[in-house]
Amino acid sequence: MDRLKRQIGFIVELDKLKTIVRQSWLADGSRRENSAEHSWHVALMALVLAEHANADMDLDLARVVKLLLLHDVVEIDAGDVLIYDVAGNVSKPERERQAAERIYGMLPDDQAAELRALWEEFEMGETTEARFAASLDRLMPLLHNFLTEGRAWRHHGVTADQVLAANARIAAGSAALWDYARGLIDEAVERDYLLPGKE
Amino acid sequence: MDRLKRQIGFIVELDKLKTIVRQSWLADGSRRENSAEHSWHVALMALVLAEHANADMDLDLARVVKLLLLHDVVEIDAGDVLIYDVAGNVSKPERERQAAERIYGMLPDDQAAELRALWEEFEMGETTEARFAASLDRLMPLLHNFLTEGRAWRHHGVTADQVLAANARIAAGSAALWDYARGLIDEAVERDYLLPGKE
Repeated sequence: MDRLKRQIGFIVELDKLKTIVRQSWLADGSRRENSAEHSWHVALMALVLAEHANADMDLDLARVVKLLLLHDVVEIDAGDVLIYDVAGNVSKPERERQAAERIYGMLPDDQAAELRALWEEFEMGETTEARFAASLDRLMPLLHNFLTEGRAWRHHGVTADQVLAANARIAAGSAALWDYARGLIDEAVERDYLLPGKE
Repeated sequence: MDRLKRQIGFIVELDKLKTIVRQSWLADGSRRENSAEHSWHVALMALVLAEHANADMDLDLARVVKLLLLHDVVEIDAGDVLIYDVAGNVSKPERERQAAERIYGMLPDDQAAELRALWEEFEMGETTEARFAASLDRLMPLLHNFLTEGRAWRHHGVTADQVLAANARIAAGSAALWDYARGLIDEAVERDYLLPGKE
């Protein structure tokens, strides 16, 4: 029963991710979204868009889903950092490493190692599954920004150049989705959702 | 591209599940949870607790995760119904059937059929994966109720008899988790989180 108690302790701890607020606004503009509901959304996005992964990929979709369910758990301690926040992103890896040690460490040792390895796989971004998962994790905020007329972009004064640079790695998982994303970015500039200029 | 547009349309529609509020309160008591973040939480619960599925089960864990990611999507149209709401549960199947037709119908036909079949599998509760998924979907609100000192139970005047009856099917997916759940229910009555009497 000690094993089950540790597992339940971890599951209860996960509840805190529902209170970590992201930059993205919900499509209806009613509030900013949290990292737990985002993780659900992007995991389902993987089920729906798997066919658009680059053709050379032999994708283990179940693994992509696991990576996406787990990818933001460290934010319980380390918080959500804006992708364009240079200073915040310098200290982020160490804060997230400590978070992973504490949070995954609540599990029985074998599961702690297994789930932490999945998170590290996502962070490293080298495997086929991690690359496709990262593509989806980038595409989702683009969609939310577009649907809310650039609400988070405009709040932070983000430019199209920054968005293109930050999201180019979508192509490493899916050239088709990167084509789609570039179309969205172009249209966002045309509609004044996004600044066209350089930093 | 029409295929991708339909897929993106479905993904955008899913955003609405983040606004469907459940009866359960977050563990920190700050607000009630929504069905999107709940779906994430219970999908991760499946990854962590899979070993407690009944021993006769040859569980396809990836399928359990899919069922749980999709199980509440119909609530976008049909809403969340309290498990103890007799009238609300009479009309629920027809409302959810119509919701499934509309929402999954946004997808390309092959995916609409595939994802809708997964939802129906969860609803029917007959396969190994559906039974285990249902066990977790029942256990989670028990945990939230316990952690918030019976907040939703007390609000609705729910009794231990009702909780035992509504959750007995946890045993069909996991005898071990049903043992654990019964312990929680007993302790909830001892701590006055839950009424001991009959209806």
